Amino acid sequence: GSNPYHDDAVDWVVEGWVVVLAVGIAAGIVAGGSDIASQWLGDIKEGYCDTAFYLNRNFCCWGLDEADTCQNWIPWNSATFVVGYVFYIMFALMFATTAAYLVKTYAPYAEGSGIPEVKTILGGFVIRHYLGLETLVIKTVTLVLSTAAGLSLGKEGPLLHISCCIGNILPRVFPKFKKNEAKMREILSAAASAGISVAFGAPIGGVVFSLEEMSYYFSSDTMWHSFFCAMAAAVALKLMDPFRTEKLVVFQVSYNRDWHGFEMIFYMLLGILGGLWGAFFIRMNLRLAAFRKTSWLRFFPIYEVFGVCLLTAMVGYLNIFTRVQSPELLANLFRECDGGAGNYHGLCDEGGVALRVFALLSAGGVKGILTILTFGLAIPAGIFMPSMVIGALFGRALGMLVLAWQTNHPGFWLFSSCLPDVPCVTPGSYAMVGAAASMGGVTRMTVSLVIIMFELTGALTYVLPIMIVVMTSKWVGDAFGKEGIFDGIILLCGYPFLDDREEYKLNTMASQVMTPVEDIVVVTATGNTLDSLDNLLHETQYKGYPVVNSLRDMMLVGYISRTELRYAIDEARKRNLPGNTPAGNVVPILENTPAFIEFRLWMDQTPITVSHRFPMDQVIVIFRKLGVRYVLCTQHGQLLGLITKKDVLRHLASIEHPGEQESS
Amino acid sequence: GSNPYHDDAVDWVVEGWVVVLAVGIAAGIVAGGSDIASQWLGDIKEGYCDTAFYLNRNFCCWGLDEADTCQNWIPWNSATFVVGYVFYIMFALMFATTAAYLVKTYAPYAEGSGIPEVKTILGGFVIRHYLGLETLVIKTVTLVLSTAAGLSLGKEGPLLHISCCIGNILPRVFPKFKKNEAKMREILSAAASAGISVAFGAPIGGVVFSLEEMSYYFSSDTMWHSFFCAMAAAVALKLMDPFRTEKLVVFQVSYNRDWHGFEMIFYMLLGILGGLWGAFFIRMNLRLAAFRKTSWLRFFPIYEVFGVCLLTAMVGYLNIFTRVQSPELLANLFRECDGGAGNYHGLCDEGGVALRVFALLSAGGVKGILTILTFGLAIPAGIFMPSMVIGALFGRALGMLVLAWQTNHPGFWLFSSCLPDVPCVTPGSYAMVGAAASMGGVTRMTVSLVIIMFELTGALTYVLPIMIVVMTSKWVGDAFGKEGIFDGIILLCGYPFLDDREEYKLNTMASQVMTPVEDIVVVTATGNTLDSLDNLLHETQYKGYPVVNSLRDMMLVGYISRTELRYAIDEARKRNLPGNTPAGNVVPILENTPAFIEFRLWMDQTPITVSHRFPMDQVIVIFRKLGVRYVLCTQHGQLLGLITKKDVLRHLASIEHPGEQESS
Repeated sequence: GSNPYHDDAVDWVVEGWVVVLAVGIAAGIVAGGSDIASQWLGDIKEGYCDTAFYLNRNFCCWGLDEADTCQNWIPWNSATFVVGYVFYIMFALMFATTAAYLVKTYAPYAEGSGIPEVKTILGGFVIRHYLGLETLVIKTVTLVLSTAAGLSLGKEGPLLHISCCIGNILPRVFPKFKKNEAKMREILSAAASAGISVAFGAPIGGVVFSLEEMSYYFSSDTMWHSFFCAMAAAVALKLMDPFRTEKLVVFQVSYNRDWHGFEMIFYMLLGILGGLWGAFFIRMNLRLAAFRKTSWLRFFPIYEVFGVCLLTAMVGYLNIFTRVQSPELLANLFRECDGGAGNYHGLCDEGGVALRVFALLSAGGVKGILTILTFGLAIPAGIFMPSMVIGALFGRALGMLVLAWQTNHPGFWLFSSCLPDVPCVTPGSYAMVGAAASMGGVTRMTVSLVIIMFELTGALTYVLPIMIVVMTSKWVGDAFGKEGIFDGIILLCGYPFLDDREEYKLNTMASQVMTPVEDIVVVTATGNTLDSLDNLLHETQYKGYPVVNSLRDMMLVGYISRTELRYAIDEARKRNLPGNTPAGNVVPILENTPAFIEFRLWMDQTPITVSHRFPMDQVIVIFRKLGVRYVLCTQHGQLLGLITKKDVLRHLASIEHPGEQESS
Repeated sequence: GSNPYHDDAVDWVVEGWVVVLAVGIAAGIVAGGSDIASQWLGDIKEGYCDTAFYLNRNFCCWGLDEADTCQNWIPWNSATFVVGYVFYIMFALMFATTAAYLVKTYAPYAEGSGIPEVKTILGGFVIRHYLGLETLVIKTVTLVLSTAAGLSLGKEGPLLHISCCIGNILPRVFPKFKKNEAKMREILSAAASAGISVAFGAPIGGVVFSLEEMSYYFSSDTMWHSFFCAMAAAVALKLMDPFRTEKLVVFQVSYNRDWHGFEMIFYMLLGILGGLWGAFFIRMNLRLAAFRKTSWLRFFPIYEVFGVCLLTAMVGYLNIFTRVQSPELLANLFRECDGGAGNYHGLCDEGGVALRVFALLSAGGVKGILTILTFGLAIPAGIFMPSMVIGALFGRALGMLVLAWQTNHPGFWLFSSCLPDVPCVTPGSYAMVGAAASMGGVTRMTVSLVIIMFELTGALTYVLPIMIVVMTSKWVGDAFGKEGIFDGIILLCGYPFLDDREEYKLNTMASQVMTPVEDIVVVTATGNTLDSLDNLLHETQYKGYPVVNSLRDMMLVGYISRTELRYAIDEARKRNLPGNTPAGNVVPILENTPAFIEFRLWMDQTPITVSHRFPMDQVIVIFRKLGVRYVLCTQHGQLLGLITKKDVLRHLASIEHPGEQESS
C-alpha cells in the first residue's frame, strides 16, 4: 500500500507478541517446576514419606488437618535428635556442594543473583554467554539444589536471570530478532518482569520492578509487552499450582484490624533499623566480595560453599525459625493472631514473650550473618527473600514487645486510641513492615517494593505505613552510601553502566573528556587496501575507528566499528580478493577498478557529533538517552576527538571520588 | 570543598523535598475539602437536615444504623414526588450553571479534565496561565459545583489539574525553581501523582499513572519525589477523613470467594465490550468536540451546560442507579452479596432478576449517552469515574445473569467447578472487572489502571483477571484507533505533543524534513546593530534564529532564541545604548568600541546538530529524549537547514495519514 511503514510493522507486532507469550509461559513453567523440586528436596532433609519416597511432606500428609499427626511422614529425628541433625547436615552439604561443583564446572555465570549483570546488559553492555543455554540449564538445576540446601538465599534474583536467559534464547527462532538489538532488549525487559512475576507471584510488581530498576529504555511498547509477559508467566504458574494452594501468592494475609496512629512510631523505628541494616549489609558483603576476589579464597569456591553450608546447617537446625524454609516462615510471621489459628510455634501465646522474642532476635542475627556470607558464593543466590525474612523476624519481635507493653499497661497515654477488650496491636503487621524496611534498605527499591509487598500480602490498609517505612529506610540507607546492593556490585565489578536516571550537574566541556585526535587511530577515506586494514585490526585493539577524508584536513566522514570492518575484510577474503584491493569511502569513478571495498556499506555515515565546547552533562544525556557507545567531537566538520562510554564513566568517577587513582 | 558539584546540590535537595511535601499536603487538603463540600451540596438536592442545615445526610443521621429511618433528614420528596423532582432539578441547574458561568467568566482553562493539557505541558510545550492561580481557585470551586450537580463526570482529572496548579504555584516561593524548567517539570510530575493519589485514594497508582501516562522525563529523582508527594497527599487526605470512614478508599471490598476458571469467559466478554464502548465513546465524544468547536454551539457554552444538566437531572432522578452519587453507586455495585448485608436496592434478591438487570442496563445506557455529552462541556469534568460506573453497571448486570443461569442450571457443564450449596458466582466481581474494562477502553491505561483497581478494591486474588481484561479491552479498543481519549484530545486540539514512548520506523532523512537554509532567517555573527536586530524581531515571527559567520560561508556559530534576543535588546535599550550599537558574536578586538552587544551571553553556542543525511527516526529520538525544540542540519560545519518539533509532527502526520492535506 501507500504506507510501507505500517505493512512492515505487522510481522514485528505478531512475532513480538508470540515471543513474549512463549517467554512468559516458559518462565512460569520453569519457576513452578523448580518450586516443586526444591520443596521435595528440602523436605528430604528432614524426613521421608514411607508410602512413596517421591512425595514431599505436604503430599504425603495430604488431606490431614494441621492438628493431626501425619503417620506416613517419618522424620529422620524420630529415632534420636542426633540422627536427624546428622541427616539434615549431610543432605544440605550434598545439595550445596553439588550445586557449587556444577556451577564452577559448567556455567560460572550461573552464580549469584544475576540482577546486576542483567541490568548492565540492558544498559547496552555485552557479556557474551551470560544469557546462554548452559547458564539457563545449570542455573535452574543449581537454584533448586541451593534452595533445598536451606542456605540463607532467595530464588527471586536467579529466577529473573533464568527468565532473561529464556528471553534471550527463545526469540532467536525468529531470525529478525537475532539482528535487532533494540527488539532483543525489549524482550529482555519483558522477561525480567516475568521473572519477578513468578518469583513473588506479583505480576504488576514485576512490571514496575523492570521499569524502575532494570531497564534503560522503556517505551510504551516495552511496558505493554512486559505487562503481557508477566501476566502469561503468572497464569502459567497459577495453572501449575506448585504449592497446591490454588493461590498465586504464598503469604497472602488478611488483617481484621487496622493500624493505629501511635504504631507509626514503631513502624518508623523499623524503617530506621532497616536502613541501617541495609547499609551495614551492603558494606560488609561488598568488602567480603572484594576479599574473595583478591585473596586465596578465590581458588576454593567449592570449599567455601561447603563451609558456609556446614555453618548454616549446624546453626540453623537448632532454632525452629532458621530451620524451616523461608516462604513458610515468612507466611507464619506475617499472620495475625486470631483465636486458635495461626499460632505458629507459640508466636501467639500470651506468656513467655521474652523467650520467644529472644528466639526471634537470635534467629534474625544468625540469618543476617549467614546472608552476608552467602550472597556472593559460587551458587545461585538471591537477596530479596533473606532480607525480607530478617526484617520480618526483627519486626515480629518488636511487635510482640509492643503488644506485651500494651496489654500490661493499657492505660499508658500512648495506647489511648486502643479500644478496651479488643486486640489493638497486630505483631504480624510489624513483621510485614519490617520485611519491607529491610528489603528497602538492602535494595533501595521504592515504588516496586511497595507494589510487591502489596501483592504479596494484599494488605490494602497498610499501603501508607509501608510507603512511609520504605521511604524512611531508603533515606537512612542513602545517608551511608547511595548505591543499593545491585549498583554496589556493578561498581565493584566495574561494569560500564551509566545510570539512566541519575542526574548529573557538571561544569566540564566535551573537550576536557574526549580523547584528542592525536591519540586515536583514524582511517582515511582513500588510500587504504585490504591488507592495510587487516594490519590495522591486528595492530590496534580499538572497538572502532573514525573515518576522515585525509590526515591533513581531518574532515569527518563517518565511523566504522571493529566488528563491521572485520566482517567487511572477511567477506572480501572469502571472495579471494587480492591483498592490494583498494578500500575507501566511495568507488573511484575514473579508474576502472575491478574490485573495491566500499566503506559506505559498513560504516556509520552519520555518527552523533557534538561541538568540542558542548557541556559534558549534555553529553551524558546523549549517551544514556540515545544509547550510543561513542560521540565524536568536531569543529566545523573537522574531527577533534572521540568520547566513549568508558571515558564518561571515568570522568564521572574522577569527579565523584577526586582523590582516588583511576584504574581502567 | 574539592567537589563543588555536591555542595551545590544540597540546597536543591532540601528545597526539593520541602516543595514536594508542601504540594502533597496542599493537594490532600484541597481534595478533602472539595469532597466535603460536594457531598454536602449534593445532599441538598435531595433534602435537608432539620436540626442543622449545614450537615449532610451522613452527619445529620450520625450514629444510626442503616436499617433505622433517620428522623432529622427531611427529603424534599417527603411531601410528594413532584416536589422532590422539581427541587432536585432546580438545585442541579443552579449548581451547573453557576459553575459554567464562573469558568467562562474567570478562568476558561478550568474547563474539562486537564489531563491532555498537563501531558502536553510536561512534554515541553508552554500554555501560559494554564496552571495559574485563577485556574486553581475557579477549578476547585466549580469542580465542587459540577460534582454536586450530579452530572455524569468524575473529579479525578480535574483534581490532577488542580494539583498541578499547586505544583506550579508553590515552588515559585523559591526563586531557583522559577528559572529551572527541568526542576519545575519534576515538581509537576510529582504533583500529578499527588492528584491521582487523592482522587482515588491510590498513592501507588498515582505514581505509576504519572510515570506511565504523563511524564516525558522520569528520572529516579522524579520517581522518588513523586512517591513522596503522593504519600504526603494521601496522608493529608486520610487525616482529613472527609467521609468519616477512617479509610482512604471508598470502595474497599473483600471477597470471600475466589473466581472460577469458567468465569474468565464472561470476564473477557466484558473486556471486549469495554474495548468497543471505549472506541465508540472516543469517536462520538471527539466528533461532538469538533462540532462544538466549529458550529454555532461554541457561542452558547453556558446554555449547553444548562441543557445537558436539565437532561441529566430529569432522566437521572427516575432511576435509583443514576440518581445516587457515583462513588456510592460504585461501592454498592462492587459489593459481594453476603447474607443480609450489602443488599442495595435489591441487587442481591433472588427473584426479579430480569427487572433489575433491565434497570442496570438502562442506567448504563443513559449514563453512557450523558457521559458522551458531558465530557467536554465548559465545566471541570473527568472521565475516569463515569467510565468506571458505566462498566460496573453493565458488569453487574452480566454477573446477575450468570448467577441466575448458574443457580437455575447448576448441572450445566460450564458450572462443573462450582461446589454444591456454596455460592459460586459473585456478581460484584463482574462489576469490578467491568469497571476496569470500560476505563481501559476509554483511557488505554495498562499498568496504572490495574494498580488503581487493586488499590481501590484490595481484591488481591482478582489481579490476574483484571490484567487479562484490561489487556483484552485495550486490544479491542486499539483495533479501532490507537489513541485513548486524552491523546485523541491532544490530536484534536493540535497540541505539539511528541509521544515519548511510541516507536517510529521511518525511511526518511533529515534533509527531507528540514526547512532549507534558503527559507529561514539567519543572523550573522558580525555586521548587526541594535536597530537591525530590533527590526528583525518586528519583521519576523520565528521563535529563534541560527547564527552564522557570514551569509557567504554559512558556517554555523550558534542559535539565539527570540526570547533571549528580545531580552538582550531590552537590556541594551535600558542602558540607553544608541541604535547603531554594533552587535555580534565576539567583541571586536581592534576597534575600541565603547558599547557592544555580545551574542555569546544570550546565544546557545552549542546547539544540537546532525548531518543532513541523519535518519529521521533518530532525529525523533533526539527530539523526545533530549527534550530539545530544534535541531540544526549541517555538513562540514555549514548550516543546511533547521528542524523544529512542528516540522517533525507534520512529517509524522503526513506519513501516518498520507492522503490528508496538511494544515499547519
